[in-house]
Amino acid sequence: MCAHIKVGIVGYGNLGKGVVSAINQCPDIDLVGIFTRRSPESIQIQESKAKVIHISQAAEYSNEIDVMILCGGSATDLPHQGPEFAQMFNTVDSYDTHAKIPEYFKSVDEAAQRSGKISIISVGWDPGLFSINRLMAEAILPNGENYTFWGKGVSQGHSDAVRRIEGVEDAVQYTVPIEDAVEKVRSGENPELSTAQKHLRICYVVVKEGYNKLEIEEKIKTMPNYFAEYDTEVNFISSEELKQYHSRLPHGGFVIRGGTTGIDSKQVIEFSLNLDSNPEFTSSVLVAYARAAYRLNKEGQTGAKSVFDIAPAYLSPKSAEDLRKGLL
Amino acid sequence: MCAHIKVGIVGYGNLGKGVVSAINQCPDIDLVGIFTRRSPESIQIQESKAKVIHISQAAEYSNEIDVMILCGGSATDLPHQGPEFAQMFNTVDSYDTHAKIPEYFKSVDEAAQRSGKISIISVGWDPGLFSINRLMAEAILPNGENYTFWGKGVSQGHSDAVRRIEGVEDAVQYTVPIEDAVEKVRSGENPELSTAQKHLRICYVVVKEGYNKLEIEEKIKTMPNYFAEYDTEVNFISSEELKQYHSRLPHGGFVIRGGTTGIDSKQVIEFSLNLDSNPEFTSSVLVAYARAAYRLNKEGQTGAKSVFDIAPAYLSPKSAEDLRKGLL
Repeated sequence: MCAHIKVGIVGYGNLGKGVVSAINQCPDIDLVGIFTRRSPESIQIQESKAKVIHISQAAEYSNEIDVMILCGGSATDLPHQGPEFAQMFNTVDSYDTHAKIPEYFKSVDEAAQRSGKISIISVGWDPGLFSINRLMAEAILPNGENYTFWGKGVSQGHSDAVRRIEGVEDAVQYTVPIEDAVEKVRSGENPELSTAQKHLRICYVVVKEGYNKLEIEEKIKTMPNYFAEYDTEVNFISSEELKQYHSRLPHGGFVIRGGTTGIDSKQVIEFSLNLDSNPEFTSSVLVAYARAAYRLNKEGQTGAKSVFDIAPAYLSPKSAEDLRKGLL
Repeated sequence: MCAHIKVGIVGYGNLGKGVVSAINQCPDIDLVGIFTRRSPESIQIQESKAKVIHISQAAEYSNEIDVMILCGGSATDLPHQGPEFAQMFNTVDSYDTHAKIPEYFKSVDEAAQRSGKISIISVGWDPGLFSINRLMAEAILPNGENYTFWGKGVSQGHSDAVRRIEGVEDAVQYTVPIEDAVEKVRSGENPELSTAQKHLRICYVVVKEGYNKLEIEEKIKTMPNYFAEYDTEVNFISSEELKQYHSRLPHGGFVIRGGTTGIDSKQVIEFSLNLDSNPEFTSSVLVAYARAAYRLNKEGQTGAKSVFDIAPAYLSPKSAEDLRKGLL
């Protein structure tokens, strides 16, 4: 068992709450404080005795906190919080705007190199565990093809797009992998598949009084980029039904690589997740990587890292001997 | 793309042949020589121009070979070859006697520390990729349970046990995961399951003339340790059928962890393999880890390592920038 690791959380939304729960399952990690932009008195934490502190006071805790877990969003929070906190703390974050990762990595790396801290960026499941599986499967089976399927899970962006249609009161959109496509990939056939050929979209929509459901369905199904290219199913339900059956945030998906070796041996590697709670799972991954950030920095490593740079042993509280004996 | 890596192979059985094929898929790796205990002239290599060299001359190649891939067996070859070759070369091996890993690690570590080389032991899929998934899933979901299923695949030990029965001419035994058990685990129920409750055993047996099939079936099904505790199916077939349908070496399996987070969110992580050729796949894993051994030793690391100690990026020929851009 390694030394107790003192952790702070920045941001107390779904992800931050998940981190509190995840830390409660780790006897080797102590939660020191939760840093928020809101008024600290307005936040009640049931599951932890950790202090709630205004984010402007974070710098005062630089000697008390080993790793800061950044739970802000990728669109507006992390682009400045990432480099800012890397100047004071070891950090872990779940930055997930795939296209901007190189740019984000660079800005965090400069800050962390200067401060002598370590920052593990883009931790979670995609980017994160799915990325690791894409990399390893490709390295092991160079002669092959990677496939990533998402779902069944709620897509926030697509749900928002439906909500913006006039006459829609509320909506939830699920991205669902097409079973036939998954089976083809699993068989090692390596078919050519667009994102639309891999996924269908299922919407649950609450309509305001006086609006025509058929028209709304048509607007959804023909919306460019979001739905037009996809097989889309639209279901109209009541506001109560939406709350009762569609307020959780399940997600998951598959990374599958089919490849060939030797003369013509088909080899298929698959990694999959089936998650009742997307934010709670992402939080659990963040906490495991906080352990890695702490240890790697103790060993003298600095700068930005991604999950690609972290050896598995750093994620576990067990000693190298115990791991080899019990899990190898 | 990293510098070309010069590799040697020790042992030219199924695994060694698979390594030759795997290297042919890697433009960054060159095969220098295959080292054998047999007379080198007796071995013809179709797929490579690499030299075949007697194993007694290996030491002369210590400056020409960056990594030696040890393809001997765990029972009798690796316990002495592992430490022997670690005195002269960076090595990678697939040592798979789980119970003796700590002892083997120690003997290889001592040799590799002395020589300043690195040795990655127990590389393959179990131990290997399955081990990594057991470790990571446990670190991410501490409140949960790991399940490993093997198959459908040929078990050499069980096939041999059937062959030793009087009157049996030849036999192949498949270990097969029980679908019901897999489904229960996938649902996140976390049932208690013994190895026998997770797997059934299917035998294809060729009987010599004049022997009673019913008696042989009874002997198989009641054989302690190997079959008595299991649901076992025995099929009698002809020698020709055995050759035609059961001479490949498929394998695979699943590592599944079901865990809970938050109040009661079920989260399931699954890694699975479906392999036409068990030895060719293991060889492909060995070659990817040879890349890691070379690079880590270049960075100054020495001693024995396991897959737990290797960050994913070291397995890929791509640069860190390309990996972050394309796969994260």
